[in-house]
Amino acid sequence: MQIEEWSEEGFIQHLLTQFAAEGNVVGIGDDCAVIPAEGGRAWLVTTDALVEGVHFLKEQISPSDAGFKTVAVNVSDIAAMGGEPKYAFLTVAIPKHLDADWVREMVQGVKSACQQWNIQLLGGDTVGSKRDIFLNLTLMGSALQSHIKYRHGAKPGDLICVTGYLGDSGGGLKALQNHVTHVPQKLIEAHFHPQPRPEEGMWLASHDDVHSMMDVSDGLNCDLRRLLAASHCGGMIEVTHLPISQELSGLCAEQGWDAVELSLTGGEDYCLLFTMDPKAFESVQESFYQKFGKPLYPIGEVTAQTDQLTYQKKGHDIKMRLTDFQHWA
Amino acid sequence: MQIEEWSEEGFIQHLLTQFAAEGNVVGIGDDCAVIPAEGGRAWLVTTDALVEGVHFLKEQISPSDAGFKTVAVNVSDIAAMGGEPKYAFLTVAIPKHLDADWVREMVQGVKSACQQWNIQLLGGDTVGSKRDIFLNLTLMGSALQSHIKYRHGAKPGDLICVTGYLGDSGGGLKALQNHVTHVPQKLIEAHFHPQPRPEEGMWLASHDDVHSMMDVSDGLNCDLRRLLAASHCGGMIEVTHLPISQELSGLCAEQGWDAVELSLTGGEDYCLLFTMDPKAFESVQESFYQKFGKPLYPIGEVTAQTDQLTYQKKGHDIKMRLTDFQHWA
Repeated sequence: MQIEEWSEEGFIQHLLTQFAAEGNVVGIGDDCAVIPAEGGRAWLVTTDALVEGVHFLKEQISPSDAGFKTVAVNVSDIAAMGGEPKYAFLTVAIPKHLDADWVREMVQGVKSACQQWNIQLLGGDTVGSKRDIFLNLTLMGSALQSHIKYRHGAKPGDLICVTGYLGDSGGGLKALQNHVTHVPQKLIEAHFHPQPRPEEGMWLASHDDVHSMMDVSDGLNCDLRRLLAASHCGGMIEVTHLPISQELSGLCAEQGWDAVELSLTGGEDYCLLFTMDPKAFESVQESFYQKFGKPLYPIGEVTAQTDQLTYQKKGHDIKMRLTDFQHWA
Repeated sequence: MQIEEWSEEGFIQHLLTQFAAEGNVVGIGDDCAVIPAEGGRAWLVTTDALVEGVHFLKEQISPSDAGFKTVAVNVSDIAAMGGEPKYAFLTVAIPKHLDADWVREMVQGVKSACQQWNIQLLGGDTVGSKRDIFLNLTLMGSALQSHIKYRHGAKPGDLICVTGYLGDSGGGLKALQNHVTHVPQKLIEAHFHPQPRPEEGMWLASHDDVHSMMDVSDGLNCDLRRLLAASHCGGMIEVTHLPISQELSGLCAEQGWDAVELSLTGGEDYCLLFTMDPKAFESVQESFYQKFGKPLYPIGEVTAQTDQLTYQKKGHDIKMRLTDFQHWA
């Protein structure tokens, strides 16, 4: 059997059976591992790689964006559990004929991201690679242990919410792959220079009415299923409530693409997905707007139908045929 | 300029200028980063990658050994500063046509190493790769902050010591590359299944008379130069004192290879290199033997001639022409 017949999920399940966490730590299965620390705090640890030819094409992405994104995707995981990014460890595997300027600019991208999120890069490994570039970052973040939000906290009746537009990154990538001219810069930026917001994650995590949280990295359809499975719940999404940017709507109208489908499967959104007590939504939404100058988007609700995710359009059930974003291939 | 004209050292220097550690943490430049924790303890963090075609050939190494070695090389870094390995984070990038059995056996190798050193694997990332396999591990270890040994602690007059045979791994690799038949199993094992000893590192680190320590991963000649440079000292090695196994001596005699040269440049020894007060050597050596049933090997001394590493044979200066082991190429 070839590994492609195993899904990434299947592989993670295999790892879970082999490496069950023991003691007071939380291991494989959420956005970060959790290691208790002093003073009621905990370390959140996550690791994420970008591989040339799979996650980026050297001809498409600038070296600076490649470095920036390597940090950003990990910041998104720390944000997902309500943590503050702190210390990073970078592995760079590069073919020996690679231009030194590429590496220097990639390092500048890493530095720029570290400065933006106040992260210290404390170590790493620099090795050769036969052909492709491989960038891996491990990021440690800090959180109040009592604030940490997990995927498994959703409750039937919760509102399902996201913190930002969905599908912009996927739309930008699809436009590039299809050689579309005049793609809105915002969509290109969303893909190459993602902006996770740990300050929003920390803020949401500090609210008891927020019950579960994760980041949207593989597309809402895929990630929400993970959150619901971890919580042994189901969910219903009202597609007319999905936050879709004007830029993405415009591009999709022009190209004949389905904006709803892209928003559900495009991947690499790096906003936050969370569920919360609907009774508290109005006040939380108002405080969030005052604090961050942007709305929260309620898009559906958690149900008791374990593992069932359904879609509605203006209150009527609809069937969605979705092909999830694949990091694996 | 191509990146190969930059040495790995040059790249690390570049990173150092870009990412100076601030506050009470220790960043790039030693075997691990150091992050203070509660109760006088500290986290040691290291990350190391193995890349197909550079660090291993899929046709040569068993998947289980590839997994085991990915853990072992990081354990060696934790041992080098006197820490106890604790939590690991694994990134696996694999081409989609790879056999799932290869991956399963690699995971078993990781598991076997984690069991040997009592490490919990708490997370990771599983992604696709276009062509080559990348294995990256980040390892957190724990140490008493007052016991941690650095590269920069060596003092003129210190004895230079190692904890194990040098060159076995390099000899095993060279034999494989030259298609030598009947290679001693011990040399093959040293290369594919290295055995760093964190218990020895912790024990040595608990002694104030031990002034500096690191692991031997790129060959003694290369690594000792790093330790001496960090300590602003020089050193002298008596080549007749280098611990060379009977198996390596025999192989070298048979093949006409220089065992001394291999012991200095072979790389991947994963034993410990340390310097200590010569007055305490006898008693430390005796306790070490009682505790671990093996000797320490004094091989030279630290001098005040900054950055000068000289070699002697039976007390007479000799010139060594050495080409260091290259992880980079």
